[in-house]
Amino acid sequence: MRIPESILEILRREERFVILSHINPEGDALGSSIALALALRRMGKAADVYNRDGLPSIYGFLPGSDLVRRLEEMKVTPESVVVILDCNDLERVGISERMDCKLSMVIDHHETESDYGDIRWIEPECPATGMMIYYLLKSLDAGIDSVMATNLYTAISIDTGTFRYSNTTAETLLAGADLIRLGADPSFVAERLYESWSRNRFMLLIETLNTLEINRVGSITVATTVITSEMFRRTGTTSSDTENFSNFPRKIEEVHISALFRETEDGRWKASLRSKGDVNVARIASHFGGGGHKNAAGFLLDGDIEEIKRAFLKAVSENLLVKT
Amino acid sequence: MRIPESILEILRREERFVILSHINPEGDALGSSIALALALRRMGKAADVYNRDGLPSIYGFLPGSDLVRRLEEMKVTPESVVVILDCNDLERVGISERMDCKLSMVIDHHETESDYGDIRWIEPECPATGMMIYYLLKSLDAGIDSVMATNLYTAISIDTGTFRYSNTTAETLLAGADLIRLGADPSFVAERLYESWSRNRFMLLIETLNTLEINRVGSITVATTVITSEMFRRTGTTSSDTENFSNFPRKIEEVHISALFRETEDGRWKASLRSKGDVNVARIASHFGGGGHKNAAGFLLDGDIEEIKRAFLKAVSENLLVKT
Repeated sequence: MRIPESILEILRREERFVILSHINPEGDALGSSIALALALRRMGKAADVYNRDGLPSIYGFLPGSDLVRRLEEMKVTPESVVVILDCNDLERVGISERMDCKLSMVIDHHETESDYGDIRWIEPECPATGMMIYYLLKSLDAGIDSVMATNLYTAISIDTGTFRYSNTTAETLLAGADLIRLGADPSFVAERLYESWSRNRFMLLIETLNTLEINRVGSITVATTVITSEMFRRTGTTSSDTENFSNFPRKIEEVHISALFRETEDGRWKASLRSKGDVNVARIASHFGGGGHKNAAGFLLDGDIEEIKRAFLKAVSENLLVKT
Repeated sequence: MRIPESILEILRREERFVILSHINPEGDALGSSIALALALRRMGKAADVYNRDGLPSIYGFLPGSDLVRRLEEMKVTPESVVVILDCNDLERVGISERMDCKLSMVIDHHETESDYGDIRWIEPECPATGMMIYYLLKSLDAGIDSVMATNLYTAISIDTGTFRYSNTTAETLLAGADLIRLGADPSFVAERLYESWSRNRFMLLIETLNTLEINRVGSITVATTVITSEMFRRTGTTSSDTENFSNFPRKIEEVHISALFRETEDGRWKASLRSKGDVNVARIASHFGGGGHKNAAGFLLDGDIEEIKRAFLKAVSENLLVKT
């Protein structure tokens, strides 16, 4: 990967940095931000990290995560260099107005959405922004200490499913190996990311799996699961405990679509659709007024859950059976 | 890792190899066996792979897996070199009598259980036998092709939870990176290992999770699950469908030990123990005459399952509460 010389130059030359990332931040946004801030501080510069939503509690394990503050506290001066990580427009950061800063810089691995930023370094082929920051820090003089290494290892882990997704390459594992040598503990990170569920959340998963139904719609196999308000109440959980639940039935080889229907606080039904390969669930979601991407989409409906499931299967049949 | 010179010499010198591994083989036993056999064949030698239980269907994706035949078909002659992989005694292979062979060789990463083998190469610190075979093949002249690379990548993936367990080191990721360069596809292997379950297997998982009990033994939290013969019958599954089931309850943050008890065909109970961090389940397994590693061990007992669970919890209390 070729790091733009102008970025290295600015990081070496300037003295004040404000590091921002996208709303609802996950491990790549957070780990990249913290690692970059710590490296800049080690180089004797001022570097602060802000996020509209602050630090989600599940990322409290990240060393240095106390650096992450909310946007309300942000201080940008005409001397500041603003660095936007893991997204590339201001709206995704949760900011509506351009800032009065010295320079703005974007470092991201997502396709461009806007032209924000005086300097833009976008690598859509790179699996994680954490990989870009890793290469960046290797090229700076600061060195990567064990705290930065843990943050970058977490960033790369989240965006590659810890080396399981199709964006994983030999280079990803080489970066991981180097970060372990520099102090990241792979099982600690994996344990915090994948094995730190509350008991209540696990009980909710079991109850959810017990609702599994598998239907064949033409050539498409659809798994449906349901979470009622009563299930949330019984297990002492909330909707925030259901992250990733819709992925579980994808473990079944024959399943093309996994649909999780969960009751909202106002008694509606939120559908989370996940699909494999070429099966496009965004088309089904849009049929119900929802949206999303090809393999992950959703919609919201009122009514009886059994009728909703029937309507959903009908929509699968009408929207997907003729593949285009 | 230092490869015994005698092993390299024998593999180079001898002409006929019989490769064996443990009963109920998993990805490490199978991937290591197939990769070694293919390398030896490429070197112009005869090399056959046998396993008492043949090839479990979930490993049918392994290229070269048609090499794996059942023990009944085994042909050992006085010219054969017998190579035992991923275990180190004949009983684990499912063989009761010593074989009339030229030489026997053991390559394993488990603690020794017996002294079988004219040449023994045991590396208890190594996360997978597949890592040992990887280093071995790097030292031979055969080279590693993409088929061998996929088998070794799978072997290492299985025994490290695809780089998530505490046995994962920088060297593990370096080997993984090299195997990707040599042709292993990380997302293909992950999808086959983690998202290619039969529907029956998924139903068995749900039934298994429904047996979950969580007990507090002093400072240790223990999750137990049970699979009865009746559950296998009802879901149309076998013991080979239970791989990794014992890991599921580890998702719960407070759980230190997850113990899965499954009924064997002859009505005994096989316990699979998994633990986190410093909790050493090998000590508990050895209390019951079993064995294994610190974080993954097992044993076999006769009796009533409720009594076995009670005895197990008592053993946890007696063997773990005073940490040394």
